[in-house]
Amino acid sequence: MRNLTLLTDFYELTMMQAYHHHQTTTGRKQVAVFDMFYRENPCGNGYAVAAGLQQVIDYINELFFAEEDINYLRSTGTFNEKFLEYLKIFRFSGNIFSVPEGTVIFPGEPILQVVAPLMEAQLIETAMLNIINHQSLIATKAARVCWAAQGDGVLEFGLRRAQGPDAGVYGARAAMIGGCSATSNVLAGQMFDVPIRGTHAHSWIMCFDTELEAFEYYAELYPKACILLVDTYDTLKSGVPNAIKVFQKMRENGMLASHGIRLDSGDLAYLSKQARKMLDEAGFPDAFISASNDLDEHLIAELKNQGAKISLWGVGTHLITSKEYPAFGGVYKIAALSTDNGPWQHKIKLSEDPVKVTNPGVKKIFRLYDAKSGKMKADLIALADETLDNTKDLTIFDPIATWKRMTLKARDFTVRELLQPVFENGKCVYPKLTVTEICTYAAKERNTLWDEHRRLVKPHIMPVDLSQKLYDMKQEMIGKLRG
Amino acid sequence: MRNLTLLTDFYELTMMQAYHHHQTTTGRKQVAVFDMFYRENPCGNGYAVAAGLQQVIDYINELFFAEEDINYLRSTGTFNEKFLEYLKIFRFSGNIFSVPEGTVIFPGEPILQVVAPLMEAQLIETAMLNIINHQSLIATKAARVCWAAQGDGVLEFGLRRAQGPDAGVYGARAAMIGGCSATSNVLAGQMFDVPIRGTHAHSWIMCFDTELEAFEYYAELYPKACILLVDTYDTLKSGVPNAIKVFQKMRENGMLASHGIRLDSGDLAYLSKQARKMLDEAGFPDAFISASNDLDEHLIAELKNQGAKISLWGVGTHLITSKEYPAFGGVYKIAALSTDNGPWQHKIKLSEDPVKVTNPGVKKIFRLYDAKSGKMKADLIALADETLDNTKDLTIFDPIATWKRMTLKARDFTVRELLQPVFENGKCVYPKLTVTEICTYAAKERNTLWDEHRRLVKPHIMPVDLSQKLYDMKQEMIGKLRG
Repeated sequence: MRNLTLLTDFYELTMMQAYHHHQTTTGRKQVAVFDMFYRENPCGNGYAVAAGLQQVIDYINELFFAEEDINYLRSTGTFNEKFLEYLKIFRFSGNIFSVPEGTVIFPGEPILQVVAPLMEAQLIETAMLNIINHQSLIATKAARVCWAAQGDGVLEFGLRRAQGPDAGVYGARAAMIGGCSATSNVLAGQMFDVPIRGTHAHSWIMCFDTELEAFEYYAELYPKACILLVDTYDTLKSGVPNAIKVFQKMRENGMLASHGIRLDSGDLAYLSKQARKMLDEAGFPDAFISASNDLDEHLIAELKNQGAKISLWGVGTHLITSKEYPAFGGVYKIAALSTDNGPWQHKIKLSEDPVKVTNPGVKKIFRLYDAKSGKMKADLIALADETLDNTKDLTIFDPIATWKRMTLKARDFTVRELLQPVFENGKCVYPKLTVTEICTYAAKERNTLWDEHRRLVKPHIMPVDLSQKLYDMKQEMIGKLRG
Repeated sequence: MRNLTLLTDFYELTMMQAYHHHQTTTGRKQVAVFDMFYRENPCGNGYAVAAGLQQVIDYINELFFAEEDINYLRSTGTFNEKFLEYLKIFRFSGNIFSVPEGTVIFPGEPILQVVAPLMEAQLIETAMLNIINHQSLIATKAARVCWAAQGDGVLEFGLRRAQGPDAGVYGARAAMIGGCSATSNVLAGQMFDVPIRGTHAHSWIMCFDTELEAFEYYAELYPKACILLVDTYDTLKSGVPNAIKVFQKMRENGMLASHGIRLDSGDLAYLSKQARKMLDEAGFPDAFISASNDLDEHLIAELKNQGAKISLWGVGTHLITSKEYPAFGGVYKIAALSTDNGPWQHKIKLSEDPVKVTNPGVKKIFRLYDAKSGKMKADLIALADETLDNTKDLTIFDPIATWKRMTLKARDFTVRELLQPVFENGKCVYPKLTVTEICTYAAKERNTLWDEHRRLVKPHIMPVDLSQKLYDMKQEMIGKLRG
């Protein structure tokens, strides 16, 4: 396990020292509540997919300042010995709540909440944002690509274009959570026990005197999963006919098992339809056609619209970097502060833009479902001490356009709370899940959405409302600050 | 040091096993030449900045299959024991040549060259592309941002939005190579001995009863580098006046040293001009004004055009993800193959698109400079056995539009070869450079470019031509394959 304790912005440490100084000189202990939330779904999607919690847990569990870290900090000339002494015994001692990985999430709601001594809560901001922002971005992008593929398999192929080794490895993990069926990334396969796939490259073909020879050699060695790359010289005149020859020989020898071709250039709609015809006429209706080459969700959707005969999609750069929208804008804002175990002093950050005004206080999220279909109706952000009773009618309203109201009839809806305890007093209380378990949960989560929310372009917007109590408190605070 | 041996695409390993099988069954040893090159400069830039070589060296030095790696590969059911036995003793035994980190590079030229047993050359493709693609991308983006800042300091502030921990750490490294003066990333500071910077966040201000109190407390603790964030409540009505009060008190107490403010929202041109006026009138002409908030090279250039009074720029998301263009399209293509120490059999990959046809053979790059100004004139890709004599006139020509010709007069130009030996027979022969040394070289490199090549939009294109010998060989091969 890597120690990522110094994976933080310098200002977290300068603030931390100042808070430490404040605490030791005044003797007053401050505990803060910070919310992590984001303001806009990537790629214009109707939702996002939360991912990265396990790596946040690993980070917190391994959080300590090693001797060389202390020495490095000393060398900057910014930190005093008293603070460095404190860092030597530092361990995270607070509470963390989070939505489970794979949960469908929406802008504005607290997807992760830290309740901890102010200086601890401050230190962990940067690394947590880094981890959750990255994986949630890629999981969301993958969900889009898989939605476009309409149930076809999607393979994550992007390692060579990922932004460094971690982006490849954790990006592959997030892609699986978003719905991919396998990755080309062997290290991700090893670390997360997820399926890995791949066959050969153009260089393989070019190392033999002829394409047929290269295919034959490959088929001999890998008869169980024989996917031949057919576009090195000429897809329809050379690649597909040679692949058919190899499949015929395999059939004669009783070696034919899973077999297919991969297209990696040219017009994939046209070539796949022609190749399908050639394979069918040669007696290989089960040969599958996979495709790669700068694919994204929009191109896949268009190719499917045009009847492309492709059933397996290898997606690289666009998925692993979320090329169209490469940063998930998760932020981490203070919501409340308590001194010496006193009552919470609520915090709000104003902005000229109403959607940028933060939600004060210690909060939770209620997710509301239609009782009959099990589909999601709305999220309601409430204060932590609120309860919700589905035996009574519930009216919710948009917190900005307050005339937009919806009444859920008693017993026509069900309620679920999203935030789960992850750390209690510095100790992890959250189960260690396999990526496969997370994937199963994540797929169920996406199925609670109506198709209208999953559309790639201009999806229907899910309401994320505030409880009356939270709304009133927020208005009162804005009034006071502006008054 | 992390073992990244399995950081590879699955197909590299299936091909590797097949090559191993071929070698052990035929007894023939194949050595290949692979070129790494890219086809398009990021963000429409006129050049790119090579970065990541030190991490490639670390990767190759640590390249070995641990027991758990072998066990994992066995568990996939794809690999035979003979091959797994070979992997146990595997070490990279080939040669690698590369341009030094920080070198200005152009599309189409081999920036890294591997000459190694085929199966070894194949294995290392993915990780090398991952590392070089990522760091060259961010170094290039940073060079653009720094060019826009016209000599002002640029701080890399993007860790929280980077695509995972490595993207933050190695992105910060690459940003320094591209010209940034410091980073907020503490781990990057520790690992690469580069300057780190940062002060406080909005949460700092919000944890005090008043903004003034927060400023005073901060100034007391950090008088040597006192940068106050002035936009939490109201920049001009509250933040700047409070900062001035603090600076006055510091001056009275003889504590005033490096001091300034940071703007993080609102119109940075307007606010910085107003703040400058207020600071000057209060007697603080040396107070510097730094700014952040979704900055990129275009916004910085525009703000400077409008006379913004900002001299230090904190750049986050746009820099650390190269948001506008988040993937450097480096590829790795076979150029030659030799069997049993026989002559090189040249390899070429055709494409319908002339610029996508690869350059065959074992090559090198000559960089040509104007003798008087020291500025760069062109790159010439030649075969490895060619020499270049600057005591004779040299005529070079565009390899696609061959009528575009340029004659360099004898002694009016100088020549430098770009590719340097990095590994010889598996042993690293390249010096370990500090990031500071690389930064110094990189800055010199960028200064060999005319301003016209550094323009942010539609820069002048640097010629990258082929030697007559390479050009003729390529044409002959195309003719044969098409004939």
